[in-house]
Amino acid sequence: MMIRTGVIGYGYWGPNIVRNLAEIPEMELRWVSDLRSDRLRLVSARYPGVRVTNDYREVCADPQVDAVVIAAPVSTHFPLAMAALGAGKHVLVEKPLAATVEEAQKLVDEARRRGLTLMVDHTFVYTGAVRKIKQLIEDLGELYYYDSVRVNLGLFQRDVNVIWDLAVHDFAIMDYTLGVEPTAITATGMSHVEGTSEDIAYITVFYPGELIAHVNVNWLSPLKVRRVLIGGSRRMMVYDDLETSEKLKIYDKGITVTNGNGPDTVYKLLVNYRTGDMWAPKLDVTEALNVMLRHFAECIETGRRPITDGVCGLKVVRMLEAATESAKQRGRLIEFPSAAAVSAEAV
Amino acid sequence: MMIRTGVIGYGYWGPNIVRNLAEIPEMELRWVSDLRSDRLRLVSARYPGVRVTNDYREVCADPQVDAVVIAAPVSTHFPLAMAALGAGKHVLVEKPLAATVEEAQKLVDEARRRGLTLMVDHTFVYTGAVRKIKQLIEDLGELYYYDSVRVNLGLFQRDVNVIWDLAVHDFAIMDYTLGVEPTAITATGMSHVEGTSEDIAYITVFYPGELIAHVNVNWLSPLKVRRVLIGGSRRMMVYDDLETSEKLKIYDKGITVTNGNGPDTVYKLLVNYRTGDMWAPKLDVTEALNVMLRHFAECIETGRRPITDGVCGLKVVRMLEAATESAKQRGRLIEFPSAAAVSAEAV
Amino acid sequence: MMIRTGVIGYGYWGPNIVRNLAEIPEMELRWVSDLRSDRLRLVSARYPGVRVTNDYREVCADPQVDAVVIAAPVSTHFPLAMAALGAGKHVLVEKPLAATVEEAQKLVDEARRRGLTLMVDHTFVYTGAVRKIKQLIEDLGELYYYDSVRVNLGLFQRDVNVIWDLAVHDFAIMDYTLGVEPTAITATGMSHVEGTSEDIAYITVFYPGELIAHVNVNWLSPLKVRRVLIGGSRRMMVYDDLETSEKLKIYDKGITVTNGNGPDTVYKLLVNYRTGDMWAPKLDVTEALNVMLRHFAECIETGRRPITDGVCGLKVVRMLEAATESAKQRGRLIEFPSAAAVSAEAV
Amino acid sequence: MMIRTGVIGYGYWGPNIVRNLAEIPEMELRWVSDLRSDRLRLVSARYPGVRVTNDYREVCADPQVDAVVIAAPVSTHFPLAMAALGAGKHVLVEKPLAATVEEAQKLVDEARRRGLTLMVDHTFVYTGAVRKIKQLIEDLGELYYYDSVRVNLGLFQRDVNVIWDLAVHDFAIMDYTLGVEPTAITATGMSHVEGTSEDIAYITVFYPGELIAHVNVNWLSPLKVRRVLIGGSRRMMVYDDLETSEKLKIYDKGITVTNGNGPDTVYKLLVNYRTGDMWAPKLDVTEALNVMLRHFAECIETGRRPITDGVCGLKVVRMLEAATESAKQRGRLIEFPSAAAVSAEAV
Repeated sequence: MMIRTGVIGYGYWGPNIVRNLAEIPEMELRWVSDLRSDRLRLVSARYPGVRVTNDYREVCADPQVDAVVIAAPVSTHFPLAMAALGAGKHVLVEKPLAATVEEAQKLVDEARRRGLTLMVDHTFVYTGAVRKIKQLIEDLGELYYYDSVRVNLGLFQRDVNVIWDLAVHDFAIMDYTLGVEPTAITATGMSHVEGTSEDIAYITVFYPGELIAHVNVNWLSPLKVRRVLIGGSRRMMVYDDLETSEKLKIYDKGITVTNGNGPDTVYKLLVNYRTGDMWAPKLDVTEALNVMLRHFAECIETGRRPITDGVCGLKVVRMLEAATESAKQRGRLIEFPSAAAVSAEAV
Repeated sequence: MMIRTGVIGYGYWGPNIVRNLAEIPEMELRWVSDLRSDRLRLVSARYPGVRVTNDYREVCADPQVDAVVIAAPVSTHFPLAMAALGAGKHVLVEKPLAATVEEAQKLVDEARRRGLTLMVDHTFVYTGAVRKIKQLIEDLGELYYYDSVRVNLGLFQRDVNVIWDLAVHDFAIMDYTLGVEPTAITATGMSHVEGTSEDIAYITVFYPGELIAHVNVNWLSPLKVRRVLIGGSRRMMVYDDLETSEKLKIYDKGITVTNGNGPDTVYKLLVNYRTGDMWAPKLDVTEALNVMLRHFAECIETGRRPITDGVCGLKVVRMLEAATESAKQRGRLIEFPSAAAVSAEAV
Repeated sequence: MMIRTGVIGYGYWGPNIVRNLAEIPEMELRWVSDLRSDRLRLVSARYPGVRVTNDYREVCADPQVDAVVIAAPVSTHFPLAMAALGAGKHVLVEKPLAATVEEAQKLVDEARRRGLTLMVDHTFVYTGAVRKIKQLIEDLGELYYYDSVRVNLGLFQRDVNVIWDLAVHDFAIMDYTLGVEPTAITATGMSHVEGTSEDIAYITVFYPGELIAHVNVNWLSPLKVRRVLIGGSRRMMVYDDLETSEKLKIYDKGITVTNGNGPDTVYKLLVNYRTGDMWAPKLDVTEALNVMLRHFAECIETGRRPITDGVCGLKVVRMLEAATESAKQRGRLIEFPSAAAVSAEAV
Repeated sequence: MMIRTGVIGYGYWGPNIVRNLAEIPEMELRWVSDLRSDRLRLVSARYPGVRVTNDYREVCADPQVDAVVIAAPVSTHFPLAMAALGAGKHVLVEKPLAATVEEAQKLVDEARRRGLTLMVDHTFVYTGAVRKIKQLIEDLGELYYYDSVRVNLGLFQRDVNVIWDLAVHDFAIMDYTLGVEPTAITATGMSHVEGTSEDIAYITVFYPGELIAHVNVNWLSPLKVRRVLIGGSRRMMVYDDLETSEKLKIYDKGITVTNGNGPDTVYKLLVNYRTGDMWAPKLDVTEALNVMLRHFAECIETGRRPITDGVCGLKVVRMLEAATESAKQRGRLIEFPSAAAVSAEAV
């Protein structure tokens, strides 16, 4: 089966989507839509056989189109995705799924009602590094923490804050790898430029038991850092996305707890640390977008639920919305309905 | 004037104090006290002329002693320091000043009442790197943030959590360099070993205006990191204490705000970033303890107020106590009395 | 004046040349020639207005063509460049200029005889980093050494050894920045794959006085390293091309010589070292190929001698040939004719 | 058996020897000798029970002394070691064994004639990292190269050049780990301070087959580097002694050779590279001096031949002497007698 596809939006991310689509045998790039004619001229120059239009409704109206990929600003995700679903198309939306929980929920409901595939492009989930983390995370033992620093200089955006721009990646990775649902979130942050939203934010996510996650995102850092530490009772991982090789390292390190008895226990350590080998597994270097688009095609064909389906997109939007809300109130704790409740609501 | 000094406590930090004291011409090491006789035998072997005792009261009772240095467990700081002040000795206390705000306040009051020098050993404040940060911080422009990651594997301690062990360094550096008083604090954290306190904590400190600080401390990290970013409107600094040279780097980087007008402002950046030279100033490499002890001697002689005096120690303890309290309540915001109020209270 | 240009060779480097040519207003891309038709189809798809041909002679025969850029295998540089010069075209040749000193000399002679611009694409010379090294090198004081490590895994090539592939960059940088002519060269190396030439080589270049250069090139290294140290009597530089920012660092470090007298001079140091600030200047990030091609255009228009002219290309080929010859004889020293002699010969 | 030991020389290295000796149960520190009385006073203060003397002959004359450790300047190694052997003592000499091949040979002969243990303190051989390299080197497949960069700023020494100061470490590591004898050596170098010897040197060592070693040593580098790459046909190692953890990394990387046939083989690669996991084994962190001294004691007791015996010390001195000689003649190749010949000569 050949999946005929239309892409809406040819700004920053659209060209990457289109380039990868053009290389996937089971997908056919049929349309590109964008409001700006100069962007469409670029498409025509590079992909002469592709239809272009300023009006996305043409894409939705084409009965030859099976699937629509949305790579337009976040605020347009909801109306565009609803229109595509309404026209009976399978839909892939650039992250985040929508601008609010309410919108995301409606998309999930609409896709379910119509029996269509709804998927969100949480790109990092499809990288070799994150897929390997998923494979290896059970080896860490009981999970203790997920700690991410994702900072650099720029780029300020008008329609989203630094949480929606950067923490979205961690929320998606956490959702995919940790295997549990968060119970509460708290965030602090600050805006330093009048008229813009938070450019720095610090987010803590609580999970059942003793698992805690923290995400440090910053648009004002002189250094670029993309580093995640994941610690468990038996092993620990470091995922440094800026390393050219060895992005993922597994440390056979941990603590062993012993009872210290004796007269001077005030100085005695209760806990000793343990150091073993370090290991950096070979990672698949296939471009994540390629893996993601092939997964989209496969889900459409088989009816299988995508790894990053609408519910997954909804959960990430819920975290983004809650973190932003908490940051506006200097860290007010926002508790999530229980996982059971979420599932019930979402299914 | 020769300042005759007694040291109480010869465990982890005491030997460093003693070694440095022995090299400072204006100070004379007269006593070392410790409960453990094997520790005292070490002192006698290395410093045959020094008196040793199991009973710190001997040190306080010696009329030849001008000053006492306390390097014993945190829980003992208050009784030992009170005893020494009560005996008319100038007092230097290993960080943190005391185990509670109440104790710290009493020490400040007692020293003031008796006209004695009370100083806390916030060691980092006396390093070449932090003194240089203090000198250069005005060049950063308006301060935006202080962001510290201070993590490593171990060492768990029975009587303090990771905040009192590691964040204390940042609170002391912030107090010394930022030049403003915090208005509120919020922290999250987690303990992963039964019977111990927090081994991971994330602390946000709010300051007047748009300055925000964050401290990430962790005893369960496979990597050792000691990195502080300080950002301002004109320049940014990176202080990496694990670098063998170039511990401090000043980046001529920042953002410039422009108005984006036009039809597609949804995509238009309001803010551009700017990159210039980087510069790593030469740092004084004198051992911080040596600088600190000479400053203590000088303050005793001249009556000058120490850079890290009792009030400073009190403010840091207030932050430690508040952060710990907030972490126990999953990030409840704890507001500080206004700076004016603190000063009034403290003076 | 618009310089109408033909490019011969559209393999690895040609597309970069073509992409940059297409963006330079004072140059017009008129022809691309390659033996392989599939490569030419790529050209036509991306640059519909450009003429393509399998026969480079068409390019040379076109009277509308002012200049020819050669981006074909090294062994073809000489016949292609001679043909283009013979047809009265200005010529730019991908590095190295030719496969032998004899060929390079003939090209220099031919271009001089015909009054045409002959330039070699020593790309690194046109990077922001190397141009900054050139500007700052006098600040180093008396030059002591140039020490380069340029190693990585792969890519083996059939027609050149690792010296011609990697050391060529250092020889070009040395020629541009050091400001003196080498007096002798010695090299060692080894081939580890039957039927291929050296994959590892270590080259020492002697200069007048106490300046020495060393280049370590290796196709079998598990790490990628691109690091040059340049030391002088007053300051030292580190140029690390893999750094994303701060590629160039200037260290205010050096030695100071003092006389040590006394009974135990066997232990006394004659030389002390001195450490000051470090400084990483902002670098121009314009793509080197763009700078290089605009310089080619400017030289054609004005008749000015290119920074990397034919003589410069000849000198680099002389070093490559000598290093390869020395490596085959396990480090036999090969002396160069005096600088005066080279100039005389070359002018 | 308790081995009663005298140490001759208490300058830079002597205190480390003495400190470790004091902690080894099977050795008794009986004497320390040094020409300088102030150094001896330090010994007495720290080790009150130890005899001290300005005259090393007292140490040799004491019939209670079983073994002598020599930690004096290189030029004195020969007379001191001969005196100790002559007095029937087992001898451990700080590296290098002696100042010339002739001296080293005489020491080897004398020790053999008298049936005494002669050992050289090639300290690096006893580190956890180098012992692990030895264990793992067969996993690399056929050995291709050993490539070391060992550079930093200072310290100039009057009695040795940079080869004797720094390359000695690599020669010792190579002798221990590579398992083959060098066939020839060539070196270049330069002195930049009048009256001193080489402060920079580049040394190539040839081995049978296609194994080549290179050592880059430099006292004038703004960076400190201690990095050894070892490449083989199946795997590669990086040993970075400045890493605080993961000093040794094993890369499952290499090349695979295939035959490229076809019309355009000029561009076709003959060799592809292969990348797999990376692995950093846990290393023993026992201080190397401790391991070395216990090995010395064990060899004395059992009569076993030390890992770094006199012959090993002789071979390293032979390389140092040859490298220095070659560097003075701008890289003249110096061939070694065949391995068989060396052994015959040495046994």
